[in-house]
Amino acid sequence: MPPNPPLTAQSSKKGLPPGTLVHIGRRKREKTTATVIDYSAEKCEERELPSAADAAKYKSDSTVSWINVIGLHDTESIASMGKTFDLHPLLLEDIVNSTQRPKLQEFDACLFVTVRLFYFDVKSASLESEQVSLVLGKGYVLSFQEDARDVFDPVRAAIRQGKGKLRGAGADFLLYQLLDVLIDSYFDVLENIGYAIESLEEDLLKRPAPSVLSRIHKLRREMIIIRKAVWPLREVLSAMDRLDNAFIEKKTHLYLRDAYDHTIQLMDNVETFRDMLAVMVDQYLSLASNRMNEVMKVLTVIATIFMPLTFLVGVYGMNFDFMPELSSPYGYPAVWAVCILIAAGMVVYFRKKEWL
Amino acid sequence: MPPNPPLTAQSSKKGLPPGTLVHIGRRKREKTTATVIDYSAEKCEERELPSAADAAKYKSDSTVSWINVIGLHDTESIASMGKTFDLHPLLLEDIVNSTQRPKLQEFDACLFVTVRLFYFDVKSASLESEQVSLVLGKGYVLSFQEDARDVFDPVRAAIRQGKGKLRGAGADFLLYQLLDVLIDSYFDVLENIGYAIESLEEDLLKRPAPSVLSRIHKLRREMIIIRKAVWPLREVLSAMDRLDNAFIEKKTHLYLRDAYDHTIQLMDNVETFRDMLAVMVDQYLSLASNRMNEVMKVLTVIATIFMPLTFLVGVYGMNFDFMPELSSPYGYPAVWAVCILIAAGMVVYFRKKEWL
Amino acid sequence: MPPNPPLTAQSSKKGLPPGTLVHIGRRKREKTTATVIDYSAEKCEERELPSAADAAKYKSDSTVSWINVIGLHDTESIASMGKTFDLHPLLLEDIVNSTQRPKLQEFDACLFVTVRLFYFDVKSASLESEQVSLVLGKGYVLSFQEDARDVFDPVRAAIRQGKGKLRGAGADFLLYQLLDVLIDSYFDVLENIGYAIESLEEDLLKRPAPSVLSRIHKLRREMIIIRKAVWPLREVLSAMDRLDNAFIEKKTHLYLRDAYDHTIQLMDNVETFRDMLAVMVDQYLSLASNRMNEVMKVLTVIATIFMPLTFLVGVYGMNFDFMPELSSPYGYPAVWAVCILIAAGMVVYFRKKEWL
Amino acid sequence: MPPNPPLTAQSSKKGLPPGTLVHIGRRKREKTTATVIDYSAEKCEERELPSAADAAKYKSDSTVSWINVIGLHDTESIASMGKTFDLHPLLLEDIVNSTQRPKLQEFDACLFVTVRLFYFDVKSASLESEQVSLVLGKGYVLSFQEDARDVFDPVRAAIRQGKGKLRGAGADFLLYQLLDVLIDSYFDVLENIGYAIESLEEDLLKRPAPSVLSRIHKLRREMIIIRKAVWPLREVLSAMDRLDNAFIEKKTHLYLRDAYDHTIQLMDNVETFRDMLAVMVDQYLSLASNRMNEVMKVLTVIATIFMPLTFLVGVYGMNFDFMPELSSPYGYPAVWAVCILIAAGMVVYFRKKEWL
Amino acid sequence: MPPNPPLTAQSSKKGLPPGTLVHIGRRKREKTTATVIDYSAEKCEERELPSAADAAKYKSDSTVSWINVIGLHDTESIASMGKTFDLHPLLLEDIVNSTQRPKLQEFDACLFVTVRLFYFDVKSASLESEQVSLVLGKGYVLSFQEDARDVFDPVRAAIRQGKGKLRGAGADFLLYQLLDVLIDSYFDVLENIGYAIESLEEDLLKRPAPSVLSRIHKLRREMIIIRKAVWPLREVLSAMDRLDNAFIEKKTHLYLRDAYDHTIQLMDNVETFRDMLAVMVDQYLSLASNRMNEVMKVLTVIATIFMPLTFLVGVYGMNFDFMPELSSPYGYPAVWAVCILIAAGMVVYFRKKEWL
Repeated sequence: MPPNPPLTAQSSKKGLPPGTLVHIGRRKREKTTATVIDYSAEKCEERELPSAADAAKYKSDSTVSWINVIGLHDTESIASMGKTFDLHPLLLEDIVNSTQRPKLQEFDACLFVTVRLFYFDVKSASLESEQVSLVLGKGYVLSFQEDARDVFDPVRAAIRQGKGKLRGAGADFLLYQLLDVLIDSYFDVLENIGYAIESLEEDLLKRPAPSVLSRIHKLRREMIIIRKAVWPLREVLSAMDRLDNAFIEKKTHLYLRDAYDHTIQLMDNVETFRDMLAVMVDQYLSLASNRMNEVMKVLTVIATIFMPLTFLVGVYGMNFDFMPELSSPYGYPAVWAVCILIAAGMVVYFRKKEWL
Repeated sequence: MPPNPPLTAQSSKKGLPPGTLVHIGRRKREKTTATVIDYSAEKCEERELPSAADAAKYKSDSTVSWINVIGLHDTESIASMGKTFDLHPLLLEDIVNSTQRPKLQEFDACLFVTVRLFYFDVKSASLESEQVSLVLGKGYVLSFQEDARDVFDPVRAAIRQGKGKLRGAGADFLLYQLLDVLIDSYFDVLENIGYAIESLEEDLLKRPAPSVLSRIHKLRREMIIIRKAVWPLREVLSAMDRLDNAFIEKKTHLYLRDAYDHTIQLMDNVETFRDMLAVMVDQYLSLASNRMNEVMKVLTVIATIFMPLTFLVGVYGMNFDFMPELSSPYGYPAVWAVCILIAAGMVVYFRKKEWL
Repeated sequence: MPPNPPLTAQSSKKGLPPGTLVHIGRRKREKTTATVIDYSAEKCEERELPSAADAAKYKSDSTVSWINVIGLHDTESIASMGKTFDLHPLLLEDIVNSTQRPKLQEFDACLFVTVRLFYFDVKSASLESEQVSLVLGKGYVLSFQEDARDVFDPVRAAIRQGKGKLRGAGADFLLYQLLDVLIDSYFDVLENIGYAIESLEEDLLKRPAPSVLSRIHKLRREMIIIRKAVWPLREVLSAMDRLDNAFIEKKTHLYLRDAYDHTIQLMDNVETFRDMLAVMVDQYLSLASNRMNEVMKVLTVIATIFMPLTFLVGVYGMNFDFMPELSSPYGYPAVWAVCILIAAGMVVYFRKKEWL
Repeated sequence: MPPNPPLTAQSSKKGLPPGTLVHIGRRKREKTTATVIDYSAEKCEERELPSAADAAKYKSDSTVSWINVIGLHDTESIASMGKTFDLHPLLLEDIVNSTQRPKLQEFDACLFVTVRLFYFDVKSASLESEQVSLVLGKGYVLSFQEDARDVFDPVRAAIRQGKGKLRGAGADFLLYQLLDVLIDSYFDVLENIGYAIESLEEDLLKRPAPSVLSRIHKLRREMIIIRKAVWPLREVLSAMDRLDNAFIEKKTHLYLRDAYDHTIQLMDNVETFRDMLAVMVDQYLSLASNRMNEVMKVLTVIATIFMPLTFLVGVYGMNFDFMPELSSPYGYPAVWAVCILIAAGMVVYFRKKEWL
Repeated sequence: MPPNPPLTAQSSKKGLPPGTLVHIGRRKREKTTATVIDYSAEKCEERELPSAADAAKYKSDSTVSWINVIGLHDTESIASMGKTFDLHPLLLEDIVNSTQRPKLQEFDACLFVTVRLFYFDVKSASLESEQVSLVLGKGYVLSFQEDARDVFDPVRAAIRQGKGKLRGAGADFLLYQLLDVLIDSYFDVLENIGYAIESLEEDLLKRPAPSVLSRIHKLRREMIIIRKAVWPLREVLSAMDRLDNAFIEKKTHLYLRDAYDHTIQLMDNVETFRDMLAVMVDQYLSLASNRMNEVMKVLTVIATIFMPLTFLVGVYGMNFDFMPELSSPYGYPAVWAVCILIAAGMVVYFRKKEWL
């Protein structure tokens, strides 16, 4: 496989009988690790899970359990985790195929959400992403990440400190909180891209170098990628808000609706950035065409002034025996006078035409 | 934070536990001030509110009370105002986050509307905006502004003078009136942009300088920003018209429908301006390409006339011992004749080709 | 107010308390005049109405009455006419605000339709428009125009002559007929624009001058304006066809459906013209780029032929003491031969490259 | 009327009272002729109809009658045919107005379909069209064409030979068959345009002359025209499939659904061709810009080599008394050596820059 | 028929009476061959079918039978296969017309699906396709291919090995599996195109030759073709999921829904690739325009430096009797000094303008 797999990378699955669990995506972590946070209004307990079997007891207890699984390459661990929680084979396939489109799927025993998470590196203006899958069951939330990033830390802090509504609420509210911090991370990314666009705008007006254009094009390509993730994210939240089942309590819907509004705002920002970058490309091209025009004018002015003059002095460089002007004492100064007159006339003409 | 925060600016909230009230936006005012207008068909009383507690009595009385809060940075004041009127935490978050998308939200105790307000400075053709949040409860309207501008003055005047239907109607009609003057302010902005477009059109035809193009691009960017606010504003009015609850009386719906029609008209104007600006960019580019063509033609005409002539006089500047033409008395006039013939032929040729 | 008000012109209303009747638009007529045509299957009577009070008797009689009001600047006359027919204040506001978007509105006592009417001046290819408002009540139709144009004359003729179904039918059929001639006038305008496009196409192929392009851009801008009026017109007819109330008789719906089909055809034509004009701009630009290419080739051919020759004759114009060629009797003819060979070689080369 | 009427041509109707039957379109035939094919499972009879009155007997008999009327300019014949079959005046107006948008209309006594028929001339790549109107009644189908083309011949052959289901089925199946051959004729046209596009593609890659571009633009304009006809055709078939009335038997719906699928396929092909032509325009423009670049490089290389050389030989053409180089015997060969060195250096430089 | 039939190729059917079975498409195979795999949970049998009559027994037995027919040119074999399984004539027409749009059709006796299958040759970046038709009846699936490619091999392997759910499930699950491997083959194609795009991106940044652009345009055209197939494929899966009939068991719907999600992901990828290719064209054009600018600058710098110098030395090449500078011993060095000053000044000027 080349170092940089393209947008769709399913070929590793090619020819295998359907239903085989294969990790599709970059191998970010060799080993899969899992941690659990088990909490209720009164208590809160955190520990590592050595194996999927240890997770079994969290499935049915009365507290809310959040099991965070990191690393998707070890498909056996994922499969045994799936067996512990009775997850549908299609769901497991979607978890390990990290090129999934964000989506929401209802199963009998659980609700499955998969979304894409972005990281924007401000310095290199480069975009990275990973897939995050969330499973909501009765009293538990499973989260699957390709790599351990700190995106969920504010939720962990809120559970530990017992601040906000989280400790008193159910697993559905935990799912909402996880989605909410995910959506907040989109705003972070867009904010940074917004700064990048502003700095590009300044550079564009100051000095429209080709490098500015290639940075604009890079951002345009990244907006295409983000847009591809945000659009279905909106659908996920919208579908979740319309869900009418036992997994989501009624009072959580108000929060989901708020998160949905945020995804619409994300879409708006993405579209606005796309429009702005398109305007900036137009601006660059017209600035470049203006500069080209300037160059052409300089060339034309120089050529138009000196070509007639060179012709004129060429005339009096001819070696004809009979050239009366050559013997006149006023000949030489007259040529200079004519040259200066022609040059001055041209300059006046170009001034009038606003080329100079 | 940089002086010019981009379109999305949520990073100040990053890492904080969900539910914390943080002002997002430019700090336009340090202190939060509040005024109340309390009126019924018979009486009308205006005063400043030193603290949120003073507002409590306006919550339940039989008159219509309009409390106008200016300045969003002092989140504690906002929070205590929220406590006084039993506002939902999500609602308060939306009020202080001044990068909200315009939206309408129904709560049990109130109706929440947030819209964006624009100011267009004609001279610099620059656009400013602030967020205005409106809360409609039983018998009261709360309005939250980032800065004290005069947009609501006509409504204040109408209440004081007792003109129109306002004094006799309920709080829902006050909300309609506030939205109506907000929408009217959009028409003001668009009208000014319309004038700017017309003046640009004239400049474009008179003298298509690069500065005209950058003014066009600036307007295009501003139309992107306005469009982002008008589109959801239309949805707000449409949703409000479809509302079927106790907050909005039946007879007010006819007025809301009218306001909705105005937002559609706004959308139409925005789209028309966008289309026109796009046509103007096309026009500029083709004018620029025409000018480039002119420049190239001048260069080509000059070069095509003088290059052969320069060659010819170069020939007779050669120092060969044996050049019969040099000793002929007709040589020199003949060269001049040939030169004039060549030049004249070229001019005729370019006339025919319509280059001259 | 500047001579040429932009698309939205509401600023004259700025700051006035809501509900004040203000004429928005160009003052086309100072005075408001009204005429009435009162007819039934048997009789038909036409007269001028000195004042709105005189119109009162036409409100309730058994005949169909068509009151045509011309001139919107005299808002007092409009207001008293509104009082006579119990028109809602919002309706009156829409009549005098002549920048309305075409729309249909149902009131308890009447049906209100406002549309835009276009005039296309073939010679100058310029587009003018005015707003026409129509009110359908029980047994009467009110029509409000900014200026007296002849668009409704065919309907007047049909009433007078008693041809067609008009005399035997109700006020709803009169409304349909008025809308039908309005829609026909759109076809007139589009037909003339179609001729303009065809003549532009011919000019474009014959001689693609910059003036052709600016005429194309002018038509593009006018199509934007027309499109902005036709699109909501389609909605008006569609809404009218779906109306299920007492104002429109069942048998009229077949005609309304026909008129609706015509508006769709209008939309199709508008979109087709837009697409064609876009193709024409593309065509112009590629023709311009072809011409530029031609110019560049001429320049390059001339320069490429004469620059080496000028260098060559320059060589033998040098004044070195020791230049053996100069004393040879074959030197001069040899230079000429080399020059001709170089020039011929270049010509052959450019022929092969298809530059000549 | 100009020789080439534009897309909309309703002006001949201008000012006439509504309901007057006027032929709108090019007068393709002066006289209107009609033929009838009357058939059942057992028998099949064909004959000319001298007048509309002769058609009356086919209206009510038990066989299926197909009356084909050719030529729309003789509106009186059309009117009397309309009277014979009780056709609604609006329907007759649509038949003679040959600029109709394809549509389906239900009347009490019949079903009315109007579609557009295209002919593509392969040699000139020019597109012609005519309007075909079809009326389905109980036991009869009327078809109205502007000109006698052979599009319906396969159906005539199928009736005569008694092949297929046609002879045993009702008038609705005949209508389906007529529409089916019409749709097949669209596929013919698109197939020919497909060949034209392929040949253009080859020409584009072989030798991108301006004539290729104008052929591309011609096809683009023709696709706009075809698209305008295919899009509503799809709606016609879709509406016909959804019809729930006595005119169309249940078993015919499967066939209509199939025809509908074909219209969707038509749309797909039209859109694909449009996209491909757009890509080809892009390709042409970038090829043209490449060629321009080549021309500019040749010019620049020539000028950059010869301008310094011409200056150098100019230096030694000066007539100063004191120029030590002139008297040196190595002066002349040295100048040549310097010239060759400069030229060679330039060539190496341009090779490195990949201009040569 | 030309070697390369265009997108629509129905002309071979022209003039034939409707209902005639004609193969439309390239004759990939002369003979039609058929194989059957007959399986249940317990047993699995594979054999060739010499004739359609042999297929009859698989129609009604209790096992699941998958009959794979390869080669569509021998329409008689197809017709007799159709007779054996009571297939509707319209269905048979669609099978042999290999230019069908992907679609799903319900018949009384069976469900008919036709899709397009793509093969992408990585080396030549060329795209091939064939049509695959699938018929689902009670206990059997018929598949029709134009050519024998290995796309269905994983399903054959899964049946033979008895892995997965296939052996225990019904014919509907077999249909799902066939569609699933078809959809997987789309991902393969898109993955390869993704690699092609990435390699193009690298080439574009390294050395933007015209060949890169024509490869981009080729991919753009291929994306148009793929998009035309993927869009209706999505509709097919969506319609199949909504089907409420006896052919598809309830538990299969979860799998169909999953396949539907994959088609949406396909669409997303296709659109993303289209957007990216559009950005790349923009990038190429701006790079080309930058290079042109460079060329022009070189030309202008050279001309601007040497034209004045050539004029200057031309002056002192004149043969006037009275030219005082000529006799001065400092004349010649002075001219050189002035030349070097002018050249240096120009270089400094162009450095400041950032042209050098």
